[in-house]
Amino acid sequence: MLWGMKLVLAVIQDADATALVRVLSENAFEVTKLASTGGFLREGNTTLMIGVTEERLGELKRRVQQTCRSRTRLVAPSVPMGEQHEGLASDPVEVPVGGAVMFVMDVAEFVKV
Amino acid sequence: MLWGMKLVLAVIQDADATALVRVLSENAFEVTKLASTGGFLREGNTTLMIGVTEERLGELKRRVQQTCRSRTRLVAPSVPMGEQHEGLASDPVEVPVGGAVMFVMDVAEFVKV
Amino acid sequence: MLWGMKLVLAVIQDADATALVRVLSENAFEVTKLASTGGFLREGNTTLMIGVTEERLGELKRRVQQTCRSRTRLVAPSVPMGEQHEGLASDPVEVPVGGAVMFVMDVAEFVKV
Ligand code: NI
Ligand code: NI
Ligand code: NI
Repeated sequence: MLWGMKLVLAVIQDADATALVRVLSENAFEVTKLASTGGFLREGNTTLMIGVTEERLGELKRRVQQTCRSRTRLVAPSVPMGEQHEGLASDPVEVPVGGAVMFVMDVAEFVKV
Repeated sequence: MLWGMKLVLAVIQDADATALVRVLSENAFEVTKLASTGGFLREGNTTLMIGVTEERLGELKRRVQQTCRSRTRLVAPSVPMGEQHEGLASDPVEVPVGGAVMFVMDVAEFVKV
Repeated sequence: MLWGMKLVLAVIQDADATALVRVLSENAFEVTKLASTGGFLREGNTTLMIGVTEERLGELKRRVQQTCRSRTRLVAPSVPMGEQHEGLASDPVEVPVGGAVMFVMDVAEFVKV
């Protein structure tokens, strides 16, 4: 039986998880959060399992993109101990944040009990 | 290579997890329990990963259905503070419990090491 | 869209997890570790989610096989309390360790944000 259903496994940064789960839930996507560590996107990632009809797959990808897109953030540089000089302000540096990978899988059968 | 193997991701209520894992293990199903939260079935869910041959898929679905079926339970209503009145017994209310969703996926290759 | 991408869910022993994650990461495989318990291989297992191109699937299976292969280890037998006798050394016994199962799944679409 083919229900036109997809299962999406999305690996995102922990920092984006709360915002994305809220956005998806508000838009009636069914999200389960799996505890996960390491790997894709280095430390601090979260894996979400999302069941979605084919009709809404495009919207799902767009929402993940909007919330988790790869971007940079300006942070104060970490200066090695003993190298700080008074009156010499270090320029903030750009660090990459966000990003996501999504595996979209066919669902052979979807059962609701 | 196609081994007639399916991978089932089942999201059930935490309250049904112990009983279902026991039933499945006693019947020689291979179950791995993934830590999970929220999403399907609201808070307190558990995700099970179950490898199963096509021959036993029907039995697996029947056992999940029997253990986790959507049902109601009578509980004492939670009465807002300050609204309890002596001698006025509140009627118990029906709350929904149980329920499960299962994603059945084709396995392209099953490897045992 | 078919990207020739596979998703591998590997269930291995906790005892082999650190070594396998290191080996796979050093060889540029993208690994996410899911928290898991029980089921396959009894207690103390770890589930890894690995995205891999078809070209590297054979190498992935070989590395899992090398690190996690089913093997035995000699351990001192656990003697029931009160049954130890001085001067009577128990022979070490072989216990099985390792082993892994891998579910290789087709990926309908792989999205990187
Ligand atoms: Ni995490
Ligand atoms: Ni839970
Ligand atoms: Ni474990």
